[in-house]
Amino acid sequence: MGTEVKSTPRERLLEAAATLTYRDGVGIGIEALCKAAGVSKRSMYQLFESKDELLAASLERRASAFVAMLLPAPDDGRPPRERILYVFERVERQGGVPEYRGCPYLAVQIELKDRSHPASRVAHRVKEDLTAFFRGEAERGGARDPDLLARQLSLVFDGASARAGIGADDLAGLVAPTVVTLLDAAGVH
Amino acid sequence: MGTEVKSTPRERLLEAAATLTYRDGVGIGIEALCKAAGVSKRSMYQLFESKDELLAASLERRASAFVAMLLPAPDDGRPPRERILYVFERVERQGGVPEYRGCPYLAVQIELKDRSHPASRVAHRVKEDLTAFFRGEAERGGARDPDLLARQLSLVFDGASARAGIGADDLAGLVAPTVVTLLDAAGVH
Repeated sequence: MGTEVKSTPRERLLEAAATLTYRDGVGIGIEALCKAAGVSKRSMYQLFESKDELLAASLERRASAFVAMLLPAPDDGRPPRERILYVFERVERQGGVPEYRGCPYLAVQIELKDRSHPASRVAHRVKEDLTAFFRGEAERGGARDPDLLARQLSLVFDGASARAGIGADDLAGLVAPTVVTLLDAAGVH
Repeated sequence: MGTEVKSTPRERLLEAAATLTYRDGVGIGIEALCKAAGVSKRSMYQLFESKDELLAASLERRASAFVAMLLPAPDDGRPPRERILYVFERVERQGGVPEYRGCPYLAVQIELKDRSHPASRVAHRVKEDLTAFFRGEAERGGARDPDLLARQLSLVFDGASARAGIGADDLAGLVAPTVVTLLDAAGVH
């Protein structure tokens, strides 16, 4: 962050909150966040009501990058089956990245254990949008039960990213065959 | 815990650590743990080297109950397919329990984000044993690729329990059909 001399204190706080909570967990202290952002605690509390609000805002801000990294372009013209598989190729690839700690939107919900926390709500919504993407593609792809397929794909997404994040599995050769089996069984060819 | 007057300070600390970290996360303070256990901090440090060691020991102690709750009896005489499905019936049932917060052995690894932490190591080993159970049943059941099936079942286990734990899915009608599809595709009939 040292080179981003033109970024505002607000942007630096959002960046620090996203990076440090992903690496160290939601228990990261306000002092550490402010230090990493080069912002005083006083300034932080002028910008955000609380650490909870800062965390929620940082997840909100990352959502578009998260979606852009995972989802295919809306108008890529490829069939639904390929658009779904595209997402899981991205997931499988992340599994090989040493710094990967799993889906940040799953992790924050597991860590906070409080569904009414502002950051949990943001995370829940971002993941609901992912399930909605799967459901839409499942419908367009003629799935027998688009709701079931969307839930299955969300389950695979979270299971894969969680297991890769804790180092239980590198996902190589695992995710694609699993999704192909589910797509075949759902009638999405 | 108020009625367990005969339990030792050690047992009460292990119980409090398991219960409170599951409910509130690994960030729970030593003070809160000692208070819930009715044990002084001084006594705690006579029994455990650190909070990390207490947490690891509490996960270790819960492992046999975790396994007993999830796995079928070793000698139940049922075919591998049914023995695997038994585990996932248990998972699906947990999804409907309001206090369910997902698999404690997954949660602690996601929360700690440190694979060398003594509690992460215990959790990692307990889940490896689960994968080994799946692999053993997959082999006995004639799976084309027992390793792949064991990884897939572990992925479904973690994905399902994570999503139920955060309230993203109640698992009803989701887990069994998913596992049946994977077993069919693997040739385990």
